[in-house]
Amino acid sequence: MARNTQVPADHHAPPITRLLAEFVATYPSRGWSDEVDHAAHRTFLNWLGCAVGAANHESVQAALAAVQMLEPAPQASILGRSEKVDMASAALINGISSHTFDFDDTHLKTIIHPAGPVASALLALAEYKGASGRSLIDALVLGIDVSCRIGNAMYPDHYDRGWHITGSTGTVGAAAGCARLLGLNVDQTAMALGIAASQPVGVREQFGSMTKPFHPGGAARAGLMSALLAQQGFTASPRALEAPRGMMQTISTKNDWSEITEGLGKTFEIVLNTFKPFACGIVIHPSIDGCAQLRAQGIAPEQIATLELKVHSLVLELTGKKEPVDGLQAKFSVYHGCAAGLTFGQATEEEFSDEVVTRPDMVALRRKVHATVDDTIEESAVELTAKLIDGRQVHVRVEHAIGSIQNPMTDAQLDGKFQGLSDPVLGPQQTHDLIQSAWVIGDASDLRDLTRLATPMSSSSR
Amino acid sequence: MARNTQVPADHHAPPITRLLAEFVATYPSRGWSDEVDHAAHRTFLNWLGCAVGAANHESVQAALAAVQMLEPAPQASILGRSEKVDMASAALINGISSHTFDFDDTHLKTIIHPAGPVASALLALAEYKGASGRSLIDALVLGIDVSCRIGNAMYPDHYDRGWHITGSTGTVGAAAGCARLLGLNVDQTAMALGIAASQPVGVREQFGSMTKPFHPGGAARAGLMSALLAQQGFTASPRALEAPRGMMQTISTKNDWSEITEGLGKTFEIVLNTFKPFACGIVIHPSIDGCAQLRAQGIAPEQIATLELKVHSLVLELTGKKEPVDGLQAKFSVYHGCAAGLTFGQATEEEFSDEVVTRPDMVALRRKVHATVDDTIEESAVELTAKLIDGRQVHVRVEHAIGSIQNPMTDAQLDGKFQGLSDPVLGPQQTHDLIQSAWVIGDASDLRDLTRLATPMSSSSR
Repeated sequence: MARNTQVPADHHAPPITRLLAEFVATYPSRGWSDEVDHAAHRTFLNWLGCAVGAANHESVQAALAAVQMLEPAPQASILGRSEKVDMASAALINGISSHTFDFDDTHLKTIIHPAGPVASALLALAEYKGASGRSLIDALVLGIDVSCRIGNAMYPDHYDRGWHITGSTGTVGAAAGCARLLGLNVDQTAMALGIAASQPVGVREQFGSMTKPFHPGGAARAGLMSALLAQQGFTASPRALEAPRGMMQTISTKNDWSEITEGLGKTFEIVLNTFKPFACGIVIHPSIDGCAQLRAQGIAPEQIATLELKVHSLVLELTGKKEPVDGLQAKFSVYHGCAAGLTFGQATEEEFSDEVVTRPDMVALRRKVHATVDDTIEESAVELTAKLIDGRQVHVRVEHAIGSIQNPMTDAQLDGKFQGLSDPVLGPQQTHDLIQSAWVIGDASDLRDLTRLATPMSSSSR
Repeated sequence: MARNTQVPADHHAPPITRLLAEFVATYPSRGWSDEVDHAAHRTFLNWLGCAVGAANHESVQAALAAVQMLEPAPQASILGRSEKVDMASAALINGISSHTFDFDDTHLKTIIHPAGPVASALLALAEYKGASGRSLIDALVLGIDVSCRIGNAMYPDHYDRGWHITGSTGTVGAAAGCARLLGLNVDQTAMALGIAASQPVGVREQFGSMTKPFHPGGAARAGLMSALLAQQGFTASPRALEAPRGMMQTISTKNDWSEITEGLGKTFEIVLNTFKPFACGIVIHPSIDGCAQLRAQGIAPEQIATLELKVHSLVLELTGKKEPVDGLQAKFSVYHGCAAGLTFGQATEEEFSDEVVTRPDMVALRRKVHATVDDTIEESAVELTAKLIDGRQVHVRVEHAIGSIQNPMTDAQLDGKFQGLSDPVLGPQQTHDLIQSAWVIGDASDLRDLTRLATPMSSSSR
């Protein structure tokens, strides 16, 4: 009963659960800068496009089939699909689809993909409740601040131990957002955070299986239900996050409480959220970006004799596959990434399809790519030298690939990414209208237009 | 990226997920001794009585109100209540009610309460699927074996770290049981275990709040959904339990794989399951038992001058409250426990009601109880000396309280406990019939009789 544990418990943690509950329940609507609000809209838009884009993926089909065994009430939309399910199941499925392509947002300090759990829970709840777009965006900013601050406190030990930090922190972030959207008071919000604190989701061993995208989905569902339970008077420990046997000390040996308390309500983690231009691991991004820059300079694939890359060691360690045979393997091939960048100027899900990856011209082109490790090159950088058939040499150096904090995707580039994901699902016109709706969602009196545009319209009028 | 972690990863773990999937999917129906099958019926019966007994508790009311926000389809019964909800929500709510009084079964080696997660998931699924009682009992034995063996491997480090081991292992046990009930093959069962492996539920800081009983409920729900997902082709890592970044190494520093592999299919953990006769923490049980023995010897409360206890140090550490003011405090008072044992010969939920606890005769009687720590007394034992008003002294020594492995409750005592829980909810006649039905559930062609008897009958005929 009085056994020693490996990690000394911190009995003097500040009242984190209470502080976060007060923050979430009482912070003024839009009580932040335009920059923060714009970052929230970018986060929402990117999440929406990712979810719509993966709507017909087999992971979503399987999850929906399981949910349909429960005969769910048609309360909320599944993005990119015509079925409706109960709001908790919609949170689950939209969370799964938004992370299926690994193309969603990244809070680089923690590698959390914050929108998946929080936005998936919020949209389902907001749609059902008839909430305004403003209350959705308010809750998104606050919920993401909660999950990312908890992540900052525990990172990196918590992640190193094996937790998929997106799902483990996401349940609490989703609960925070939903508590805000439901208008819970401080005490009820503390209970919502507390109930969520018993439900961290996700271990890293699942990477490569459908259970990886299940993590943000499961977190979204659990967070939403935690808020509904708290609203009905269900109780939890008021110190569930920070107590010695609370969530954070149970799942992480490092807990820097100041990451939560300092600047709370003054700085917002959502402004540190980044968006991937390329549908693959972040270490290849500089190389793809460099190749896209060569293409933009007018260099065509058929002009290339060889392409020499100087890269950070991790690039070859993680993505050194020379002869990928399908789309999934190609995501771990810097060689295919370069071929895609040179040929298409982009590397979306389509450029990682089996069809593109096995095209003879792509196979030939990536065999012309040679990569060597250079210890002077940062992880975020690459040096490219294209030797052309006519004897010319063209040199490109990328310091920070497009999509990094230093070189973020522009709003127009996010639109283009969205179109690439959504056009095949919803068609170009509806995709265009949906993008317009998402950029001004904070001003919408309700979410009916957006959810209508985010689901395929039947031929009949409705 | 290549940071060190605190705990060296074990890259050579045996294929635990696969071994357990083969065990669960292929073990012969009733391929065990009568002793095992009887233990399964005792476990089922005790779980059922606890769930029925707490059906009207505020924790169940709150959880049901939250679930009703989802407008659930009426697929499965809520024990002790007339409402029906979808099977996953029924698993959640019956799991909550079964643990609300902390009166459910205990696997003493791990302090797991194994039936809550597993039986709650199984009954809801079996009712919906029209499964036989035999398939329910088969799945209960196998599911509980999975959760308790995983618990044996991780205990005590995992528990010490802060996990409520009932919910953390229970998700996997519930998934195993549901996979069996659904007739999933080995590959699908491995996926069900794998999906569940990302969803351990519960931290110990929640003890004392409604989120404690939420843990078996949440685990039941998550396990059931994991099996449904696997049935629909959803995938997980085939090494999700044992891999270096799988569930077990992520949530426990100790992992003794032999606890899972040795004797698998030969010995069954369910025979080690125990049942509490008294609705309070296990350390007071010897004292209550001793007082009930005094009463059985004909000693009435009004004859007592003083009652001297010699107890293990944990008894006063955990349950030393001398003047409890309500039922909850009385659960942490060995003095009240003794007064209840002397007065009623039992200590069920009723003897821990506010009304009983505040009765003047109970207050007076417990002030006559004096407890001292004796280092020669084991945790499972007590020495009692009653000094009577007429000058006589009566001595009782309890080595192993009723309810322990060494001195288990008899089947008749389990019936009596069930009646105490269920009579106020279902009435004596229906309770009697339900008990009869539960003892032979392994022979039932379906569960309709049982679920009908376990829910209040309306005055109209049905």
